[in-house]
Amino acid sequence: MTKREVIEQLLPKRLPAPCVSATAFAPANIALCKYWGKRDPELNLPTAGSLSISLGKLGSEVTLAPRAGRDRFALNGKLVAPESSFARRAAAFLDFFRPTSDFHFEVTAHNTVPTAAGLASSASGFAALTLALNKLFGWKLERRQLSILARLGSGSACRSLFDGFVEWHAGKAASGMDSFAEPLKFNWPDLRVGLVMISDKEKSIGSRDAMQHTRDTSPLYAAWPETVTRDLAELKTAIRTRNFTKLGEIAEGNALAMHATMIAARPSVLYWLPGSVEAIHAVHALRAEGCEVYFTMDAGPNLKLLFRKADVRCVVKEFSDLQVVAPFSA
Amino acid sequence: MTKREVIEQLLPKRLPAPCVSATAFAPANIALCKYWGKRDPELNLPTAGSLSISLGKLGSEVTLAPRAGRDRFALNGKLVAPESSFARRAAAFLDFFRPTSDFHFEVTAHNTVPTAAGLASSASGFAALTLALNKLFGWKLERRQLSILARLGSGSACRSLFDGFVEWHAGKAASGMDSFAEPLKFNWPDLRVGLVMISDKEKSIGSRDAMQHTRDTSPLYAAWPETVTRDLAELKTAIRTRNFTKLGEIAEGNALAMHATMIAARPSVLYWLPGSVEAIHAVHALRAEGCEVYFTMDAGPNLKLLFRKADVRCVVKEFSDLQVVAPFSA
Repeated sequence: MTKREVIEQLLPKRLPAPCVSATAFAPANIALCKYWGKRDPELNLPTAGSLSISLGKLGSEVTLAPRAGRDRFALNGKLVAPESSFARRAAAFLDFFRPTSDFHFEVTAHNTVPTAAGLASSASGFAALTLALNKLFGWKLERRQLSILARLGSGSACRSLFDGFVEWHAGKAASGMDSFAEPLKFNWPDLRVGLVMISDKEKSIGSRDAMQHTRDTSPLYAAWPETVTRDLAELKTAIRTRNFTKLGEIAEGNALAMHATMIAARPSVLYWLPGSVEAIHAVHALRAEGCEVYFTMDAGPNLKLLFRKADVRCVVKEFSDLQVVAPFSA
Repeated sequence: MTKREVIEQLLPKRLPAPCVSATAFAPANIALCKYWGKRDPELNLPTAGSLSISLGKLGSEVTLAPRAGRDRFALNGKLVAPESSFARRAAAFLDFFRPTSDFHFEVTAHNTVPTAAGLASSASGFAALTLALNKLFGWKLERRQLSILARLGSGSACRSLFDGFVEWHAGKAASGMDSFAEPLKFNWPDLRVGLVMISDKEKSIGSRDAMQHTRDTSPLYAAWPETVTRDLAELKTAIRTRNFTKLGEIAEGNALAMHATMIAARPSVLYWLPGSVEAIHAVHALRAEGCEVYFTMDAGPNLKLLFRKADVRCVVKEFSDLQVVAPFSA
């Protein structure tokens, strides 16, 4: 099935743009159980479910307005070249929603995540873009449907439609109509996320390509989907019973298993830098000393720490530049 | 089956010690396809086969002599405390071979591998000890049988009975009588091994425990035995056809897959230090520049490089402290 067919199912009538502009915000999200492997690369349908936590006020704000002539993109106050990866991906997504072929957009995006924090902005960006489209065209779609649309732009964007803990259901349908995100009805006020910056250099291989290459060549990938299924179930139990130790252990173990599948790919995909390994050992040393902190990592060299309010001091003592986020006290 | 039962099969009659002392040497070996997981921890029987290269003159020399009173151990010219791990493992192995319970040994061992090279000495040590026992007691056993005996001391010791490329057959028998090493009849004069020292600190977890913990807890371990089977077959083809690129790719991929299974263990076993990751990226950068070098790693932070004589210069330029070994020109 193609993206266009999915979109036509969700948006049977295309409405003209009713207002001058629309602005929407979506939070960044960090997966505690990772999305790593697609069963359908066209529709970004995952092999297995995943679970994330949204970062409150850290995310992307997107303003959309009709524009004559051609699309124009601005990011964090600067115009972005149309041939940049950012503009091309956004334009390709917007192509599906133009009321007429000569309709163009003015896209103004702001990331409230410091770029230096090393957080992926494509998830919050595509989520905010989808929300802004919904407003601009007056679709009045439900969040669940918007989550499906956002997924077509970037898989993990479907999770950025919600706050707090969010589960993305893998689904089984070829159309992906059952592959959407929804929030878990649990909050956790004293939970903290800490962003550890190791490097903000461009990655040598993007996460899309790394995911596909790992799936295609890593001899250990065969054991990954089952790992996720088990981790996801245990993580939901940990959240329901507010068992922080379990949550931390599973999240850290799941992230390491994901990186392990990449490290074993042929050739290897090693996002870790010397500083990543130093930080991993530092987290383990803190835990051995009784400061209960865990980490997760995405397709890059940076760490995201998980700890509780009571341990902020001992964590910040080790990681002095840490940016601390309180996902449930936004 | 117990070690004693295996030994009684191989040595039906126990002979008195016929000579005053016996000295033997065995080379260190580096696995290109790793031994990682036991089907029988008592007899050190592996889940899968493995393949190594012996390091010529780098290894262990052991002298055995009868001694009145109690055992005495010396390593590299220094007496070793009986309660040390070295003395206890050696004494436990020697227990199987004492003609009478009041027979004791004087054990004098020298490693010709610089300790700082970070090479495991238990393989060459137990291999040399087994060879010295064979001489001391006049067993006149074949190398294949000695390989079985050495395995009872330390699994990978069975490969150190031979020079050059050596295959350790996994075997199927409960007795392990079909789990021995034998040399491959191929040499490769311009092959070089380079020892990169990252750290000589004691490891936080020994390889025996790490192996067992990984097998028991790593969700990715399930895919390991099949990986080894495939790698072993391809490695033998690479050696037979003298395809260095293939040899390097498989050896590096196999080592990374082994480390990946450990990294994914719960809790994680991360032998890598910041310097290990720096060296891995340096190897990849050298390859990208046309200097064809690969690496392998054992249960520790150090790298062993694989390259050919023609590339010694470009490798040593990057790794200035490299100790270069020519396994086939000893």
